[in-house]
Amino acid sequence: MKICIINPNTTAAFTTRLLKSASAIAVPGTEVIAVQPATGAASIESHAEEALGALGVMQMVKAGEQAGVDAYVIACFGDTGVHQAREIARGPVIGMTEAALQAASLIAHRFSIVTLPPRTRAHSLRVLHETGLSNRCTVRGVDVPVLELENDVAASGPIMEAEARLAMEQDHAEAIILGCAGLSDLVEPLSQRLGVPVIDGVTVGLKFAEGLVATGLRTSKHSTYNYPPAAFRLPELP
Amino acid sequence: MKICIINPNTTAAFTTRLLKSASAIAVPGTEVIAVQPATGAASIESHAEEALGALGVMQMVKAGEQAGVDAYVIACFGDTGVHQAREIARGPVIGMTEAALQAASLIAHRFSIVTLPPRTRAHSLRVLHETGLSNRCTVRGVDVPVLELENDVAASGPIMEAEARLAMEQDHAEAIILGCAGLSDLVEPLSQRLGVPVIDGVTVGLKFAEGLVATGLRTSKHSTYNYPPAAFRLPELP
Amino acid sequence: MKICIINPNTTAAFTTRLLKSASAIAVPGTEVIAVQPATGAASIESHAEEALGALGVMQMVKAGEQAGVDAYVIACFGDTGVHQAREIARGPVIGMTEAALQAASLIAHRFSIVTLPPRTRAHSLRVLHETGLSNRCTVRGVDVPVLELENDVAASGPIMEAEARLAMEQDHAEAIILGCAGLSDLVEPLSQRLGVPVIDGVTVGLKFAEGLVATGLRTSKHSTYNYPPAAFRLPELP
Amino acid sequence: MKICIINPNTTAAFTTRLLKSASAIAVPGTEVIAVQPATGAASIESHAEEALGALGVMQMVKAGEQAGVDAYVIACFGDTGVHQAREIARGPVIGMTEAALQAASLIAHRFSIVTLPPRTRAHSLRVLHETGLSNRCTVRGVDVPVLELENDVAASGPIMEAEARLAMEQDHAEAIILGCAGLSDLVEPLSQRLGVPVIDGVTVGLKFAEGLVATGLRTSKHSTYNYPPAAFRLPELP
Amino acid sequence: MKICIINPNTTAAFTTRLLKSASAIAVPGTEVIAVQPATGAASIESHAEEALGALGVMQMVKAGEQAGVDAYVIACFGDTGVHQAREIARGPVIGMTEAALQAASLIAHRFSIVTLPPRTRAHSLRVLHETGLSNRCTVRGVDVPVLELENDVAASGPIMEAEARLAMEQDHAEAIILGCAGLSDLVEPLSQRLGVPVIDGVTVGLKFAEGLVATGLRTSKHSTYNYPPAAFRLPELP
Amino acid sequence: MKICIINPNTTAAFTTRLLKSASAIAVPGTEVIAVQPATGAASIESHAEEALGALGVMQMVKAGEQAGVDAYVIACFGDTGVHQAREIARGPVIGMTEAALQAASLIAHRFSIVTLPPRTRAHSLRVLHETGLSNRCTVRGVDVPVLELENDVAASGPIMEAEARLAMEQDHAEAIILGCAGLSDLVEPLSQRLGVPVIDGVTVGLKFAEGLVATGLRTSKHSTYNYPPAAFRLPELP
Repeated sequence: MKICIINPNTTAAFTTRLLKSASAIAVPGTEVIAVQPATGAASIESHAEEALGALGVMQMVKAGEQAGVDAYVIACFGDTGVHQAREIARGPVIGMTEAALQAASLIAHRFSIVTLPPRTRAHSLRVLHETGLSNRCTVRGVDVPVLELENDVAASGPIMEAEARLAMEQDHAEAIILGCAGLSDLVEPLSQRLGVPVIDGVTVGLKFAEGLVATGLRTSKHSTYNYPPAAFRLPELP
Repeated sequence: MKICIINPNTTAAFTTRLLKSASAIAVPGTEVIAVQPATGAASIESHAEEALGALGVMQMVKAGEQAGVDAYVIACFGDTGVHQAREIARGPVIGMTEAALQAASLIAHRFSIVTLPPRTRAHSLRVLHETGLSNRCTVRGVDVPVLELENDVAASGPIMEAEARLAMEQDHAEAIILGCAGLSDLVEPLSQRLGVPVIDGVTVGLKFAEGLVATGLRTSKHSTYNYPPAAFRLPELP
Repeated sequence: MKICIINPNTTAAFTTRLLKSASAIAVPGTEVIAVQPATGAASIESHAEEALGALGVMQMVKAGEQAGVDAYVIACFGDTGVHQAREIARGPVIGMTEAALQAASLIAHRFSIVTLPPRTRAHSLRVLHETGLSNRCTVRGVDVPVLELENDVAASGPIMEAEARLAMEQDHAEAIILGCAGLSDLVEPLSQRLGVPVIDGVTVGLKFAEGLVATGLRTSKHSTYNYPPAAFRLPELP
Repeated sequence: MKICIINPNTTAAFTTRLLKSASAIAVPGTEVIAVQPATGAASIESHAEEALGALGVMQMVKAGEQAGVDAYVIACFGDTGVHQAREIARGPVIGMTEAALQAASLIAHRFSIVTLPPRTRAHSLRVLHETGLSNRCTVRGVDVPVLELENDVAASGPIMEAEARLAMEQDHAEAIILGCAGLSDLVEPLSQRLGVPVIDGVTVGLKFAEGLVATGLRTSKHSTYNYPPAAFRLPELP
Repeated sequence: MKICIINPNTTAAFTTRLLKSASAIAVPGTEVIAVQPATGAASIESHAEEALGALGVMQMVKAGEQAGVDAYVIACFGDTGVHQAREIARGPVIGMTEAALQAASLIAHRFSIVTLPPRTRAHSLRVLHETGLSNRCTVRGVDVPVLELENDVAASGPIMEAEARLAMEQDHAEAIILGCAGLSDLVEPLSQRLGVPVIDGVTVGLKFAEGLVATGLRTSKHSTYNYPPAAFRLPELP
Repeated sequence: MKICIINPNTTAAFTTRLLKSASAIAVPGTEVIAVQPATGAASIESHAEEALGALGVMQMVKAGEQAGVDAYVIACFGDTGVHQAREIARGPVIGMTEAALQAASLIAHRFSIVTLPPRTRAHSLRVLHETGLSNRCTVRGVDVPVLELENDVAASGPIMEAEARLAMEQDHAEAIILGCAGLSDLVEPLSQRLGVPVIDGVTVGLKFAEGLVATGLRTSKHSTYNYPPAAFRLPELP
């Protein structure tokens, strides 16, 4: 089984980190690969950058289909391009946000997303609506630029922890979702300090992808996620 | 006041038609322009084509900002790229779908969208959720390829009318929203035959845009729709 | 085109102020008139006063129909009598609350109403439900008697501003809706001080009314908003 | 204990019938009275007539307060004037629609309203939203003029039964709510024929009113339903 | 008429107290009985204990049916076993939580539940969803062990009052629901101190049960609440 | 890793079948066991039987904890006892219904449950609400007694297929969820005939359970799903 982790931004350091954490928990028979677009946005902190990211996602899924990829995990909070990817792929496509939310709903009654930067709260709320879990989850934003995480994940720990504690006290959160890809190194220390499950959507998404492939489930090609019309052509990005 | 109608697909015939219908109802002081991307999709009937369209919309808004455009109307059902456009624009950006839904809610208790092709029902439902009118509106799809409308709008009249009648009988619709840009020629004959208001979102969107500009309202730059981060660069499409 | 601003309360000073602000932004071809009932309530701060106001609204629409009015704007937060007015009128009837909410949804992701007095929060919530925007808008009340605004709008500025700042900080509001008619003089100074759009529903409602009339849209007479039964007689209020 | 059944329309035959059915099930210590306005609408089949009815309801509650009434039941489907009445009354005010919906929710998982005429579906949906039971109840309209029921309730039996059967088959209804006051004579025969509970909101409302009074519960005067402002004056209807 | 108050836990002191408060407000013709299971949980503060309680509820309803009981009130916040009881009973079954919520909705626009211990907030939210009143009610938990209430109800008064005041200030509550059975002695002092209605669901539930029986309404046996399949056998608990 | 499939009913043939289908797709390192209660209900087709099933589920989880089980899958549509099990277990507990719904939401825009018998539609709707996917899924019931499936799964194929086709045509379903445990043999033939994914929640649930365990996620013991109070004692069923 071949599963592809798609980093929709162009920052290679994130891709490397994603591959490492995902590979560590894949089952022996799973080949995990991780890719990123050559052009686009260095991080995705706005709708405009999401549009660039979606283009990259489509190109990487197109390549993945030719390479025999069985399922994809989109490793960007907000699940950039997930609907486009489902149209192009035969197999399942899982966004890290929806995977994290679904996992949270299985182990906690209420939970919170701590995302960054604050202007992207709307992106989380969009996925939250699509998953239907709006009445069990709150969204909180912290003021950390995504690219600062490139070299120093640990530095964001205290600010994430402080906001998570507010979520537990004010929103009755019983689990915390890390609202950014590439933070899996925070899972262990934060869950220890908070005393509640802390969820990284990329690793969960990988395991759910393995599960869907194992059960033979693929993206439905009936209506919404059918392949794009024959006239559709993906542009080459410069 | 300068208002720009953005056709997110590459079909010039639609753009021409949109300009004509919008210009016909603009107030004397309004300069209406209509644009389309040079590359992208000939019609937008999938999420994949929406992603291409969003890229074109961003480029046209960027150009519009340099040309002093005061407001934009996105003339594609599903409001392709509307959130991206709001980040780039200073003035208001109005999607034809949300404009049609808002107008419908002001003149009818319940209403229906008749859109095409059926696989795009999910796109209408997405906007319907964002406008909040899900409990007053149903979405129906008819099996007409968008590009067939390029030369012969009238041909779609009977199938649109038949579906609209079902909406009135089964969904209690009291007004009908045309779920595609460029169908404004159907408004008059269909409303005559059906006996209920028939709504074209592009012309309504133009008037709402004029209204917002007249009252001095611009896109809020606080948080969600702030300008994209400084590092953001729009690619040139080939 | 003739558009009638209806002030459902009996305070003439409000009517004068509404006419002034609405006239200032109407297009040259629009004749704006503003009316108020001879009897009823001096201000509308309870459901009981709303019922009196609705009676006045019906009488003014009845008179307006005979005078060839093309559309109506109801200038009372809570949209007193809007459903009754739609039954009596041929053309569109727009409540200032729904107009403000729709405008806000076009320029901001989240927004808040600051209304007065606090007991009328339920009235705002009623319209909020009807527009469907409950999950994007909060309602806050300030303790200012409506009639104190008759002579001194500016005095309410600081208390409105303070509550609006709370809405921005606690509710993530990106735009503010003024929850009372006759406060259009606050739009400019408050939006300057807050740095976000501040919305007066009366002026927006006027422009939306112009827009609906221009596109030929009238109130649907199919089912809900059909004319009242033949036996219906409006009483003369003493 | 004194409970007042308020018929918001001017048709005395309905009032007599309501008094009879309510008196029949009141407990010995309860004095039931039934009133109607001298002027207003002969039946309430539109929002415009609801506004007239609300005025009458306020006047009758005002009189009731002076006569020591402990609670009120509003006997018109749509609960005309219920919010106004709560502001004027000290004791509880119960609408027949909300009472019927609450009773239905206690004895069935899903249920349907069969109301008349069809244009008033919106009135039922308004109350349905306020009670929160929208996802357990559907609303169906039958084409019977209210006043035809004045002399011949039985004539509406077959059309009500036919629609109720559709509700059971298509909407999974397990109980039926009669969507008009004065139909209590249909309860017994229809429930026999349908095999499911058939609910008349007036009799249920009377019993709930007795119950609230017995437990000492009165309308909360904190905020929303506080007494109208001191300046409020009820007009004398001609 | 015979009405049975079911205490789903094994603490006899609660049962005695429930019988006393319910008997005090029953009408002369009503015989009130109160029962409790011989085995199960001493208090119900978890889902696990709810499951034990449901078993006891079923056994007590089975016995009640043989003893000619006309209706049941489940006297545990969370309405333990209410759906099971409806399947076994012919007459109505009313949970104290749903009764309290319905009563609150008839006398206040917004209200709050103050329940205990905090981990049971999810139980209240479950019933809140079923009644549909989620958007009018908040749920607050206080840290009082249920069994401490056995001998000293008054001791919980101050902590309940403090939380109720927060509900009034922060959640706009206009009435307070006591989120535990057996607290009816708090109704009078708390409503005096708070100035808003304070609601005990058991006494309200008794009155609603009397009302449903008086109007002839029984649990619908069509579909959801039909009697359990013939093979169903209730175990004897040791 | 040890995962326990819990069949809440007493029919051994189902347990055997569940073990076979789950074992077939588990990864090499996973030990799958399947258990059933010694007493309870032969099938779960009512709330009353669900209560018996919940008791059995608790006992099996208690035993599982002592045997070192890492996660549980509840193999009964409606997810009998899932909340109780989460309180008793350290590791994750997954209901087959929620697993199926989550999987469906990852591969299709809209989907339908086909469950049996029809009276259990309410059970599916309960889980549907908890997962939040009500607006993307419909529930349809077919009239097949569960126990008839014990020996002849294939016999239910045609009736399931017929109802699934209605779901595709009328509800726009793009995937079908089998609303009963033990039907995994229908997945392959039905998906072939229908042309859309057909989902068995037990096998998906097993894979999700493996995934959660692999990522180190356990049931949150903060608040709602904390262990039951110390006084809690599980009864021995006779």
